[in-house]
Amino acid sequence: MQAEIITIGDEILIGQIVDTNSAWIGEQFNLNGIEIMQITSVRDNSDQIKDALKSAEGRADLVVITGGLGPTKDDITKKVLCEYFETELEFHQATLDHIIERFNLRGIDMNKLNRDQAMLPANCSVLPNKLGTAPGMWFERNNTIFVSMPGVPFEMQYLVEFELLPRLRKTGKTKAIYHKTVLTQGVPESMLAERIADWEDALPQHIKLAYLPNPMAVRLRLTARGEDVETLKQDVEHEIEKLKPIISESIYGYNNETLAEVIGRMLVERGKTLGVAESCTGGYISHLVTSVPGCSDYYLGSVVSYSNNIKEKVLGVKAETLEKNGAVSEEVALQMVEGVKKVLGVDYAVSTTGIAGPTGGTPDKPVGTVWIAISGPNNTFAKKYVFVGDHREHNITRSAQTALQMLRRMVLEDLGK
Amino acid sequence: MQAEIITIGDEILIGQIVDTNSAWIGEQFNLNGIEIMQITSVRDNSDQIKDALKSAEGRADLVVITGGLGPTKDDITKKVLCEYFETELEFHQATLDHIIERFNLRGIDMNKLNRDQAMLPANCSVLPNKLGTAPGMWFERNNTIFVSMPGVPFEMQYLVEFELLPRLRKTGKTKAIYHKTVLTQGVPESMLAERIADWEDALPQHIKLAYLPNPMAVRLRLTARGEDVETLKQDVEHEIEKLKPIISESIYGYNNETLAEVIGRMLVERGKTLGVAESCTGGYISHLVTSVPGCSDYYLGSVVSYSNNIKEKVLGVKAETLEKNGAVSEEVALQMVEGVKKVLGVDYAVSTTGIAGPTGGTPDKPVGTVWIAISGPNNTFAKKYVFVGDHREHNITRSAQTALQMLRRMVLEDLGK
Repeated sequence: MQAEIITIGDEILIGQIVDTNSAWIGEQFNLNGIEIMQITSVRDNSDQIKDALKSAEGRADLVVITGGLGPTKDDITKKVLCEYFETELEFHQATLDHIIERFNLRGIDMNKLNRDQAMLPANCSVLPNKLGTAPGMWFERNNTIFVSMPGVPFEMQYLVEFELLPRLRKTGKTKAIYHKTVLTQGVPESMLAERIADWEDALPQHIKLAYLPNPMAVRLRLTARGEDVETLKQDVEHEIEKLKPIISESIYGYNNETLAEVIGRMLVERGKTLGVAESCTGGYISHLVTSVPGCSDYYLGSVVSYSNNIKEKVLGVKAETLEKNGAVSEEVALQMVEGVKKVLGVDYAVSTTGIAGPTGGTPDKPVGTVWIAISGPNNTFAKKYVFVGDHREHNITRSAQTALQMLRRMVLEDLGK
Repeated sequence: MQAEIITIGDEILIGQIVDTNSAWIGEQFNLNGIEIMQITSVRDNSDQIKDALKSAEGRADLVVITGGLGPTKDDITKKVLCEYFETELEFHQATLDHIIERFNLRGIDMNKLNRDQAMLPANCSVLPNKLGTAPGMWFERNNTIFVSMPGVPFEMQYLVEFELLPRLRKTGKTKAIYHKTVLTQGVPESMLAERIADWEDALPQHIKLAYLPNPMAVRLRLTARGEDVETLKQDVEHEIEKLKPIISESIYGYNNETLAEVIGRMLVERGKTLGVAESCTGGYISHLVTSVPGCSDYYLGSVVSYSNNIKEKVLGVKAETLEKNGAVSEEVALQMVEGVKKVLGVDYAVSTTGIAGPTGGTPDKPVGTVWIAISGPNNTFAKKYVFVGDHREHNITRSAQTALQMLRRMVLEDLGK
């Protein structure tokens, strides 16, 4: 089944809101084997909405429309749908009963605008909206199904899950699909592509591979399409087993896992603890680590030492080392990591010291220079990176992610011992 | 000038990523008087991309295309553009030089796929991409401009700001427009609207006001449209001067300033320093503070104390206080803020201790409970907040922003003394 989404509303086009509805529907449909071929966002304008409907009708088996169903003047979707399907608004008693019930529960008075929400196009099937006053509407024409839903995310989500998907499954047109994403790091996209070229070429026809790179990782998404989800799952897992030995050292997780989650799981499994000493990353590593629920089981804390004084006083970095090598140096990174390990009494620690920019660089130590040190039960070392560009946020993010990468490798190697 | 956006990539259609690029472009274009009429997201599929290009060409003066410019096989935008504009790929020396430079800086080897990124459609103007290997491409046909850019957000944003918008302004088709956003906090939207109603009603015809509320602030955006930017700017500033005395205590900044930037500026002006002690916010306050360039002039650091041991050892919180009141308590927040002030030797400090969730709440202290303490040269106090919901990220963000609000107020009051 091929579907398209049309989202309606000026606020989307001027960037006042991000269209998260389409992504949510895309994910749900995808999991149910419904392919989204196009997403179109248009203004609250009758001609534009009709043009979008007409184009989609020519291509798709299913057209999902969100937005423009509120009670106020600027919401015109219902009127446009009546014109498009050459029908009239008709009073719908069950919807009015539901609206009255909602207003009674909230103890507020209804006005005419609310009452008008029970006027619905005569030729649609109504999808009752338990969580709001505007119901969903289901139309059919020339083998295309059209479903219009409110744009309020939780109302739309309720309608998709409890009304739309059950009805679509009954049509028998939904396909089986299975996805798994392999998370890799340390090898750039182009090199990774070379390394796995033979494996990729040998993938069976019904499994597709997509590269999803971001500055810190390359995600490899495998998508299998067929008749039976269990079989597809086995097929995908089988291919991943073949992929593993080729790039085993680069794979750090699967699907939506974050690096901090992966590290957290490893530390919990081993009963080890973690601490952080941050200079240039300014608390961002600690933020990533503490974004994981339950992190207090292994994370003890961070010392964000943005001044030399604190490096000395709290972390025990030696004044002469700072004097001689500067704050951005291997020696200081090492003393920071050893200092925080001792102060917090943790098994593992990472430290960062660098120049995030946009200013503060020198010819010797340009903006983007960062020393990262890692220390564990068996080993302590520091490594220098020079990230390109004077983009502060970017340098902070890269430094933090790189530190977590190094930490993951060390915990992994210790696991092997 | 009427524009459309086409975003390309299977990952958008299956909901693996949310299309934030379109919203960002929508906002920027809107600020520059360019109207976005439609946003279309299509798959990495040649026919679909061409169909979308053709439809948009018939409607728009400007078509912005993002995505599908990576070095791997599944990125087909460049090939499709060649077919659409009936041209061939041509070697572009300046782009290769730039790619080589980037690889040299990072100290990694290039392969053929990277080299191929310097092959560009013969009839396009190249928009150099300082932050990545895939440049932007500018085409013109029948009075429509087409611009293709990479989908990586920071690369796309760089290209829009420094390459695309300057060139569009030169075409003379962008309208004169001037925006200024007044950032307020502490007064809810509806009350603010009442208080400034007379001022709003008296705004001249060519200046429009929009309320942009978010959970932490209400932003008031003034938009002036006309012939000459300088005149518009004067008009807007004139209205803001009239607004200031009405809500002076609520205005904390303008445009895209962050609370951390505003606080930083105040501290620099006064020659004062700042330190942070974080428990539930886990480094996020420190991250916000250190996202501001030049923060090392006033920011000395943070102690992220995720365990009682560190609260005692580094911050000097008393064991019996922790025992008696629990870590999430007024007394502990106060001892943390006083401790960090002493350890770091700073003028101002904030501390947080709370339950970010999703678990860890009790009937007495539900998830979302947080104590925030503030200390300055003249005053120290703590305040309790209970944020609704068990959303960890949300609770961390709200706690951090509230702490910064409290800090701003204190610094402001001290300034009056």
